[in-house]
Amino acid sequence: MIDPTAASASEEATELAAALSIDDVRAAAARIAGQVRRTPALRVPALDELADAELFLKAENLQHVGAFKARGALHALSRVEPELRARGVITYSSGNHAQAVAYAARAYGVPARIAMPIDAPAVKVAGVRALGGEIIFAGTTSDDRRRAAIDLAEETGAVIIEPFDHPDTISGQGTATLELLEQVAEATEGGGLDALVVPVGGGGLIAGACLVADAEGVRVFSAEPSTCDALARSLEAGERVDVPPGPSIADGLRPVRVGALNWAIARASVQAAFTVDDDELGLAMIRLLLRAKVLVEPSGAAALAVALRRALPIDRASLGRRPRIGVLLSGGNVAPERVGELLARYGGQV
Amino acid sequence: MIDPTAASASEEATELAAALSIDDVRAAAARIAGQVRRTPALRVPALDELADAELFLKAENLQHVGAFKARGALHALSRVEPELRARGVITYSSGNHAQAVAYAARAYGVPARIAMPIDAPAVKVAGVRALGGEIIFAGTTSDDRRRAAIDLAEETGAVIIEPFDHPDTISGQGTATLELLEQVAEATEGGGLDALVVPVGGGGLIAGACLVADAEGVRVFSAEPSTCDALARSLEAGERVDVPPGPSIADGLRPVRVGALNWAIARASVQAAFTVDDDELGLAMIRLLLRAKVLVEPSGAAALAVALRRALPIDRASLGRRPRIGVLLSGGNVAPERVGELLARYGGQV
Repeated sequence: MIDPTAASASEEATELAAALSIDDVRAAAARIAGQVRRTPALRVPALDELADAELFLKAENLQHVGAFKARGALHALSRVEPELRARGVITYSSGNHAQAVAYAARAYGVPARIAMPIDAPAVKVAGVRALGGEIIFAGTTSDDRRRAAIDLAEETGAVIIEPFDHPDTISGQGTATLELLEQVAEATEGGGLDALVVPVGGGGLIAGACLVADAEGVRVFSAEPSTCDALARSLEAGERVDVPPGPSIADGLRPVRVGALNWAIARASVQAAFTVDDDELGLAMIRLLLRAKVLVEPSGAAALAVALRRALPIDRASLGRRPRIGVLLSGGNVAPERVGELLARYGGQV
Repeated sequence: MIDPTAASASEEATELAAALSIDDVRAAAARIAGQVRRTPALRVPALDELADAELFLKAENLQHVGAFKARGALHALSRVEPELRARGVITYSSGNHAQAVAYAARAYGVPARIAMPIDAPAVKVAGVRALGGEIIFAGTTSDDRRRAAIDLAEETGAVIIEPFDHPDTISGQGTATLELLEQVAEATEGGGLDALVVPVGGGGLIAGACLVADAEGVRVFSAEPSTCDALARSLEAGERVDVPPGPSIADGLRPVRVGALNWAIARASVQAAFTVDDDELGLAMIRLLLRAKVLVEPSGAAALAVALRRALPIDRASLGRRPRIGVLLSGGNVAPERVGELLARYGGQV
């Protein structure tokens, strides 16, 4: 049984973090094999030029429900006792995790109830409903919707599938990085990555990435909107801090804080935290559209925006070649109007 | 040595066609292995619903230069004697084949000269130049630019890489279908396709597809713009006919006629020819963008537009399940303004 309040306390998180490793991600990969897609690691020479690097773009926008979140949700549901799972599952999310839980619940034939913000993008609301999920609208912050989910869990006895702050979610999300490293090894005959850049909201994707990257000797860097930089500020402060999210086109990267367990894992592994503004996000997204031919949402383009700065602390001289940089493209769910607006603004600059 | 005038006569084409088979496509696949990408065969439940079928979308927009044309060009160049190839290569094209030949020439370290129409999309012109190709602008029809290429070949002694009407081009393009059938077999445990829909301009892609599909018992259907339906009209007439191309957003599907060899292969294999209008092309393209998360050019969406009609002559009742339909997404090179325009028009209807 999953306890919705697990990993909420800092000491417990530190203990849990110490117990997690790449083995948990490998176990997650085995559990969800056949349920998730092995998304391609795209190679795009024009973007390599801009980044002065060999970029391996892990296209999780092509994952089920258009986001890596399907990995964590499928894994988390697979770990719930069948009798408990039969009561249905509950979650809270600004978007992609909501669709992922609806998708996973449908795969297991159980109902999903999801607390979403009242300002959730219509495309994500429609996505949840199309997958049979029931939506409960609750406030605008991650705290608001978490509260609604906890209330509902107490009322129904159904389990909460945590969006990021849970070992099962984290190890599920880590499978994206596990696959990427396999794909890079295949493409480079065992060469490996010199760096991995990961977008950060609540920290599920980056915590999973750290479990894998630490074991494989790959350095991890984070990418956040400059207006919602909870991980960057926490690393600076040396402790987990809250950051009231400011406006950003990256609607998937706007939690109040990173998760406790996510923080406990990431603080020891993330080499440096980067923030990007809306211009960088929009341009990176349109470059992916026109150069890589894939639709990625603004949040999903954050890691590429960082890579395009050429500012990762990599000793290029000692490498004697372009660095190989993994870039996690986290999702592709974005309103048509937003795509049109960003195309009009950045289409001439790619 | 490749003779630029080969396969121009009907009798010669019939003989050549009879001599070609899936073995030539397999040989081409072996020659270009490692030079081309194994593009994904995308599965998109929302599009399956619309088509009432299991669609396998072969994403050649993710191929080098953003189009399947890289396959034929790389294969054709691999078959030119090195001493001759060193003089450089020549071709004529409205767009994607031009970029493909520039790409392949660069891979072999030889110059490429390309006759393009004066109204070629800026994005395709820029693509050729970025790859180091030299452009000679010549008229607006495929005849105009073919004439310019032949003049240049006579002048320089360099070989012409035919855009579609040549065995090496055709067998190279066939590798896309060969891969797709492998991918479908992997995904369905040997189930195989019930139908394959292929966009048709000059007929390179469909001729290659026919060589493979005939051997594997897969029925092939063609997709053309209703204003440039040379194959449909030729099949109706029982002989190859010219069709002055009318206006269409599918700029890659506007030759005056299908190739002689292409016709000789396709006439015996294509089960039925379908035409689609600009509305269907635009909507299919935007559905691919928003549902499949990939950018496909209007020409590249033609086969999906046909599949979405649910009009393929497949005996659904006797199958006892949804038909499995292969859909070749031929390319993804499209001007940002066109994407924006079609998004604004169709973004609300996907």
